[in-house]
Amino acid sequence: MRIDILTLFPGLFESPFQISIIKRAVEKRLCEIHLHDIRDYSTDKHKSVDDYAFGGGAGMVMMIQPIEALILKLKAERNYDEIIYMTPDAKVFTQKEANRLSMSQNLMILCGHYKGVDQRIRDHYITHEISIGDYVLTGGELAAAVVVDSVVRLIPGVLSDETSALTDSHQDGLLSPPVYTRPANYKGWEVPGILLSGNEKKINEWRENQSMEITRKIRPDLFDK
Amino acid sequence: MRIDILTLFPGLFESPFQISIIKRAVEKRLCEIHLHDIRDYSTDKHKSVDDYAFGGGAGMVMMIQPIEALILKLKAERNYDEIIYMTPDAKVFTQKEANRLSMSQNLMILCGHYKGVDQRIRDHYITHEISIGDYVLTGGELAAAVVVDSVVRLIPGVLSDETSALTDSHQDGLLSPPVYTRPANYKGWEVPGILLSGNEKKINEWRENQSMEITRKIRPDLFDK
Repeated sequence: MRIDILTLFPGLFESPFQISIIKRAVEKRLCEIHLHDIRDYSTDKHKSVDDYAFGGGAGMVMMIQPIEALILKLKAERNYDEIIYMTPDAKVFTQKEANRLSMSQNLMILCGHYKGVDQRIRDHYITHEISIGDYVLTGGELAAAVVVDSVVRLIPGVLSDETSALTDSHQDGLLSPPVYTRPANYKGWEVPGILLSGNEKKINEWRENQSMEITRKIRPDLFDK
Repeated sequence: MRIDILTLFPGLFESPFQISIIKRAVEKRLCEIHLHDIRDYSTDKHKSVDDYAFGGGAGMVMMIQPIEALILKLKAERNYDEIIYMTPDAKVFTQKEANRLSMSQNLMILCGHYKGVDQRIRDHYITHEISIGDYVLTGGELAAAVVVDSVVRLIPGVLSDETSALTDSHQDGLLSPPVYTRPANYKGWEVPGILLSGNEKKINEWRENQSMEITRKIRPDLFDK
């Protein structure tokens, strides 16, 4: 998979992408991530990328020209499965969506910043919009990093043990059961006895029951989805 | 505000926290962010921080000892409004929650990694659990960065123009209206005429109508909240 990220702050991605799973995926050549600085594509003599909003109001708007130039350059080089725009006013990202995107060949991700991009970019170039949740961030950069992380770890071969991803929360629409590790007794706090029993069938039953119970308690809305 | 982040991967936060709003908040002394490497608190001779899950199954579990040692050290130094654990099996973060947390004095944020922390840490030390959405990430680090970004930008004085945050999506439970900037006509794509009218009352009406319409179309569930 190839992912192109279009941003005003490419530096923000440096350390998140140097660590852990994403780095491993890149080293194994299962994924290529390319960062593009939108400012490099501004034809304005001041290299402007934002301007005041028509109609007034606080906050700057990202201009069409440099974004369009960058999108057109990339589109001329290859076909993209999706041209994604990260914005809080979109449908909310889910694990199902991560699964779907993990089967893509080429993804372009445009990070909104300030008040967002000029609507005409959305109308004419964006094929898919993603919000990572009902809250507002300084920019779409961290949101894009979240999407990349969730998608890249699902590419076959990225996680060392593939059953690990299958037992994650949300992969089956339920929250995960609690986990415990040694010592079995820590200052009097004991691990549930069943987990020490060695009875795999009983352990799986216990875990399923815990999953159901925790989901019912914390996220009953998940049963309706 | 002081935020202490407890993680196995402190390096991941370097570049996100060096950029934009968070950097500005730190420079203005409106916010202090302290990164703590959990591994430094392991008393094990190999500096272990994770171990196999009781009951079997893929994925490692973060051990109690180093996390507890770090939490106790910090708690001895000051009182915390919340000791937060980032995990996908929790209630989902919202703008309302960001507003609430932005009024805290001291926050501790524990980042889960691998299969998560030993449940006993959650039972005995965590006061609040946050999921940033219904999807799974490699670790809680990016999720913590998302929460920090959304909270820090709400601290009074951090954003240069405070009305900017008030007109964000989700601050009033609705999605934002579309935004446009110059040129008014880009290759035949025109800005809605009303925004060029200079009639503030009409512009505000148009924006409110757009907000309602977009919310109804993309996120009708927000009307039920």
